[in-house]
Amino acid sequence: MSVHSRIHSPALADKLMTAEEAAELIPSGATIGMSGFTGAGYPKAVPQALAKRIEAEHARGRPFKVSVWTGASTAPELDGALAKADGIEMRLPYQSDPTCRERINAGQMEYIDIHLSHVAQHVWFGFLGKLDVAVVEVVGIHADGSLIPSTSIGNNKTWLDQADKIIIEVNTRQDARLAGMHDVYYGTQIPPHRKPIPILSAGDRIGEASLRCDPSKVIAVVETDAPDRNSAFAAPDATSEAIAGHIIDFLGHEVKKGRLPASLLPLQSGVGNVANAVMAGLQTSPFEEMTAYTEVLQDGMLNLLRSGKLAFASATALSLSPAGNEAFERDLSFYRDRIVLRPQEISNHPEVIRRLGVIAMNGLIEADIYGNVNSTHIGGTRIMNGIGGSGDFARNAYLSFFMTPSTAKHGTISAIVPMVTHVDHTEHDVQVIVTEQGLADLRGLSPKKRAGQIIANCAHPSFRPALSAYYDAAMHRSPGLHTPHLMSEAFDWIPNWKAAQG
Amino acid sequence: MSVHSRIHSPALADKLMTAEEAAELIPSGATIGMSGFTGAGYPKAVPQALAKRIEAEHARGRPFKVSVWTGASTAPELDGALAKADGIEMRLPYQSDPTCRERINAGQMEYIDIHLSHVAQHVWFGFLGKLDVAVVEVVGIHADGSLIPSTSIGNNKTWLDQADKIIIEVNTRQDARLAGMHDVYYGTQIPPHRKPIPILSAGDRIGEASLRCDPSKVIAVVETDAPDRNSAFAAPDATSEAIAGHIIDFLGHEVKKGRLPASLLPLQSGVGNVANAVMAGLQTSPFEEMTAYTEVLQDGMLNLLRSGKLAFASATALSLSPAGNEAFERDLSFYRDRIVLRPQEISNHPEVIRRLGVIAMNGLIEADIYGNVNSTHIGGTRIMNGIGGSGDFARNAYLSFFMTPSTAKHGTISAIVPMVTHVDHTEHDVQVIVTEQGLADLRGLSPKKRAGQIIANCAHPSFRPALSAYYDAAMHRSPGLHTPHLMSEAFDWIPNWKAAQG
Repeated sequence: MSVHSRIHSPALADKLMTAEEAAELIPSGATIGMSGFTGAGYPKAVPQALAKRIEAEHARGRPFKVSVWTGASTAPELDGALAKADGIEMRLPYQSDPTCRERINAGQMEYIDIHLSHVAQHVWFGFLGKLDVAVVEVVGIHADGSLIPSTSIGNNKTWLDQADKIIIEVNTRQDARLAGMHDVYYGTQIPPHRKPIPILSAGDRIGEASLRCDPSKVIAVVETDAPDRNSAFAAPDATSEAIAGHIIDFLGHEVKKGRLPASLLPLQSGVGNVANAVMAGLQTSPFEEMTAYTEVLQDGMLNLLRSGKLAFASATALSLSPAGNEAFERDLSFYRDRIVLRPQEISNHPEVIRRLGVIAMNGLIEADIYGNVNSTHIGGTRIMNGIGGSGDFARNAYLSFFMTPSTAKHGTISAIVPMVTHVDHTEHDVQVIVTEQGLADLRGLSPKKRAGQIIANCAHPSFRPALSAYYDAAMHRSPGLHTPHLMSEAFDWIPNWKAAQG
Repeated sequence: MSVHSRIHSPALADKLMTAEEAAELIPSGATIGMSGFTGAGYPKAVPQALAKRIEAEHARGRPFKVSVWTGASTAPELDGALAKADGIEMRLPYQSDPTCRERINAGQMEYIDIHLSHVAQHVWFGFLGKLDVAVVEVVGIHADGSLIPSTSIGNNKTWLDQADKIIIEVNTRQDARLAGMHDVYYGTQIPPHRKPIPILSAGDRIGEASLRCDPSKVIAVVETDAPDRNSAFAAPDATSEAIAGHIIDFLGHEVKKGRLPASLLPLQSGVGNVANAVMAGLQTSPFEEMTAYTEVLQDGMLNLLRSGKLAFASATALSLSPAGNEAFERDLSFYRDRIVLRPQEISNHPEVIRRLGVIAMNGLIEADIYGNVNSTHIGGTRIMNGIGGSGDFARNAYLSFFMTPSTAKHGTISAIVPMVTHVDHTEHDVQVIVTEQGLADLRGLSPKKRAGQIIANCAHPSFRPALSAYYDAAMHRSPGLHTPHLMSEAFDWIPNWKAAQG
């Protein structure tokens, strides 16, 4: 399919050029707002061309770095290529690229981990400085210059509004029938001029189907023809099925107690295999007419839509496996009536999450016996990915689950520890912790009662005696007994990660 | 003044009895929702009578305990009396009473520390169990049985709605002219039936002036004639004046940069002497026509209203010194046009705080060099008071300050530490840290850059070398350099609090 069938603005068609030519227009030191959210809708060509240019400059002994803002994680063609070229000065707000991670943890790259609902507004407020260039993937360009988003929206509205210059990638591999699936809300303001966000249910449309774009800011249009990252999901294993089972039992119990409606409340589900398995588990659950108000729509949710268990899903990005993407494109018109993609300041908006009463389900790296959760750091010092939207959802949810296998590294490391080495979600924000062992309902419990539940229900049996021994010793020797701790021993559980990797 | 002039419902006047008689109606094991928020508007007689009854029962060898829910902290007549009688099984969501604190930290009393905006809805959702009795102080009773709130609203609407039985204290010492100052919003719902909270500016009135009350649930009406706790504030000292000065300079700088309007955005200010000093400092600032959207209105804000610098203040409680209260009552009709008291689920509502773009200013116990804040725990194990509303405001604010003197205990303890011993506000939620030494603007900084700012600008000079030495050592020896730490040394700074008290 020719790119010209996707570009209905002659003025913008005139700006077609190669990715290499476009990359030449980005100066060293620039701050670039890129599209992309969990491997969907990121620019595929310009970042790679920019990485080559940076490598060439470095080879000539010339410094060249840029700062990169995105929606969330992207792919090897973006984060990977630029990090390998040693081309990123500063990165925000979320990443999951192995090379990026390595450079951040080696102290070679600055990284700022921000709640995803905070990013756009901090840019509008002027808190993060000037945005020079936006590089945004789209499905096509309307005659008036407005843009049809692709498989994610993320912060694209903000990048297009705020950047001095705009580079557009028109990806002909993305399905043109995505047009109409998006809802871009232009009613946001900065204080004191803000009004309520008028979403009353997950399916409400409150905006426009395309992204406004000032054609005079567009400096390049680049054609691409490449798929999204589309990583495969692991098939649900016994561990993730057990976690899903505990959550579904608990939701059923809450319905029976009258604390949840029979169709539940809008679901939010984090990224990854366990989250995907929970969605798969809901396929055979008794709940009907469910809805989702979430960040990312993975295969599990797509299947729930297909089977009719899920009536509607709101997200900011698709994050499908190759097979999931095929199924999606096969039935795109079916899904377009049942999915809306929104800017991430809306998909993750505390106001909307709290109003709708979202049921939040997010992963964790470690939880402590008092219910504090570490979502981001290995051993307290090395960043894994970032907090993403987990804080937006957990704090404002009706009911907030954090879930994890009870052990890592073939059973050698416990996910339940005496004291987490980094806190992303405090004891005030964690309601339910779930492992394959069981579920700890922390609502209305003091720290000491939480410890009892977490050790008994969530910790792996092989670690329970040691956790109980720590707690008992703390009850005897802790200076205070509100949150009993032996601070000099609290971190004795930190694994030797080098050995653990081996 | 006779209590009869305050009770216009004959049916409720018939239920007048003594506090002792009313206390007899509360059974052991009851969960009681009491009025009261930071020493204002708490019941003065029934809790003391209940404490006496509990002591008598204990003397006879009979167990007797109750669970106590409030708005926030109360006073010796409530928390103090019941804790001294060893009568509290479980307490939430915030306390500041010395006897309570001692019992909690001795492991003799359960305490659950909850975001103040979460309390009411967790009760509506059924997450905290059944509320048996409400004990609520009012100024008077209308003919239809509705209640005129006194100097705080807190969770009173929720307690009156949810409790099986209601005991009302009519306090004739509270000024009858408080009637009309309150705005009780009855438009809240539980999901999926929630609608936007229609507040667009701090002064908007969206509810009713009095509290609805089902007269058939009222089991007792008790007359009292006693003042609120009304603790005096310390006069601003050089330290708090310096903190106030840094904040005011910074706000001026933000106005100049176009990041804040000339009249700022609605102010929120935590409780205590430093917060009060900041408000005093604003008296001579260049800002005019300010507003406040806060939890508690202290003397400093009252003076700003009087001078006209502050045009309007929204809160859930007054917390005035004896002199402040005198000034307030002298000019009550002036203040009634400029103050609105709301339920705490509205004063602290994330939706409204984010929409209005509140400037949040809260205290801390310790902050670490990476910007994590401990607001609640001494040495990681002993609770001080609780998180209160600081999380509601800090997370959702336009701009969030945390402030503290740089040292405690006559300079022997640093408020800036390598790693906080408990986290209430994560690195993702802390924008500006201020001590008398200076201000660290953490917006858009990676953890390592934050450390540089916090050590250089906020730490006391006598602790800077040791903090820098820790950071430098961590840069050499930390396994990861995103958040460099030496976990085995991170808590070496924990003071010997017994020695420090001496």
